[in-house]
Amino acid sequence: MLQQDYWNERRSIRKYLDKEVPFELIDNILKSAMHAPTTGNMQLYHTIVTTDRSILNHLCTAHFNQPAAANAPMLITVCADVNRFSRWAEISGAKPGFYNFQSFIAAMLDATIYAQQIVSIAENNDLATCYLGTTTYNAPEITKILQLPKGVVPIITISLGYPAEEGTLTDRLPLEAVRSVQTFHKATDKELKEWYEEKESLPENQQFVKENNKQSLAEVFTDVRYPSVNNVAFSEKFFNHLKENGLI
Amino acid sequence: MLQQDYWNERRSIRKYLDKEVPFELIDNILKSAMHAPTTGNMQLYHTIVTTDRSILNHLCTAHFNQPAAANAPMLITVCADVNRFSRWAEISGAKPGFYNFQSFIAAMLDATIYAQQIVSIAENNDLATCYLGTTTYNAPEITKILQLPKGVVPIITISLGYPAEEGTLTDRLPLEAVRSVQTFHKATDKELKEWYEEKESLPENQQFVKENNKQSLAEVFTDVRYPSVNNVAFSEKFFNHLKENGLI
Repeated sequence: MLQQDYWNERRSIRKYLDKEVPFELIDNILKSAMHAPTTGNMQLYHTIVTTDRSILNHLCTAHFNQPAAANAPMLITVCADVNRFSRWAEISGAKPGFYNFQSFIAAMLDATIYAQQIVSIAENNDLATCYLGTTTYNAPEITKILQLPKGVVPIITISLGYPAEEGTLTDRLPLEAVRSVQTFHKATDKELKEWYEEKESLPENQQFVKENNKQSLAEVFTDVRYPSVNNVAFSEKFFNHLKENGLI
Repeated sequence: MLQQDYWNERRSIRKYLDKEVPFELIDNILKSAMHAPTTGNMQLYHTIVTTDRSILNHLCTAHFNQPAAANAPMLITVCADVNRFSRWAEISGAKPGFYNFQSFIAAMLDATIYAQQIVSIAENNDLATCYLGTTTYNAPEITKILQLPKGVVPIITISLGYPAEEGTLTDRLPLEAVRSVQTFHKATDKELKEWYEEKESLPENQQFVKENNKQSLAEVFTDVRYPSVNNVAFSEKFFNHLKENGLI
């Protein structure tokens, strides 16, 4: 049985020691993580482990040079992959039909489940991790850097290393905000407001609002961090990337 | 530190004891799982915990009455959710722009990471789980049963209970099949064949080929389990569902 503490104390780490992560350790983690569930045991994922400094530099640019990427001795790019399974089926004389949206969704689920398993196992082997949420923004660029073939789509990047900071435990919404019982509970405006009150009152969040010259924490998200115009532009870019891969 | 054994011995369980899972236990698991990483700490997910027999029966139908669904005392439907965050932003006077494809992808990543964290924590609390891969096939039906609003899309269902079987450790591909170093390694046909040799030689898989009157294991996947015509039909259905939700 695992210790309950780990789950409740889990935090992302964005600063790493200048210390190599042994390939043998990573391979063992990636192997253990393979026991995570996968659609029909097809394992529709592929990971690329990158430590080469010049390739890392290109990847960092694709991740907008965010600190977690720039500091990491290793990036693991996790891809949804319908290519390998299709190729195997073809050389076995079968007629695969996995270049479509539903198969991409299955592959994305497989890859994400696998990624989270890697994170949990790595963190239980003295390593620290951080997800880079920028992978699907610049999928075409990452595809080029990592020389991914058609049907292999990068969806998650994990930065990984030995921790050089403690990290902070981030606030979360009360359970009621994210969990319904039996069927969906439609929240009232009053409930919604209450759920976000603690988050809005945190000193660091009030500081964000002030620094960005905004009226509310919500505006920091909608105007600064995730503005509609960016979301729409990156939506079109990723949609077209899936189209070029025959997955939509 | 977690015990290494758990990760290497992890297996899905499809038969459960006729024993209720306490809501307090599930709530604690769902709370602990919230410390999983999430895009910009937006927690773009929602879970519905269902134990009511008549609702479970409807859900089972939507999951094609697969044994893991039919046997479970509890189903947890995990949804990608851009609705709650958008509503909060609106009542805070901000102008959110999360009804688009990139935000759905972010929500899907958040929801899947959260789901896998729930599975890991549940399994370390004496519970057994199984993913139902049928959620995105029948998202419109599940949406209706659970009364999900626009912007809340079911993507994963976890069946959960106390185990009534040991389960079997499923075979996996060799690491080389799913991991490249530095950049993508394009496999030769010879390598591909070798990676699938063990899987093809397993007695249970040879039995599948025989029972289904097929030439190869690949054909069991392409002709019986995941035929192209089904994949294409379910692709269109899910794509249209996302369109109706304003997410594509």
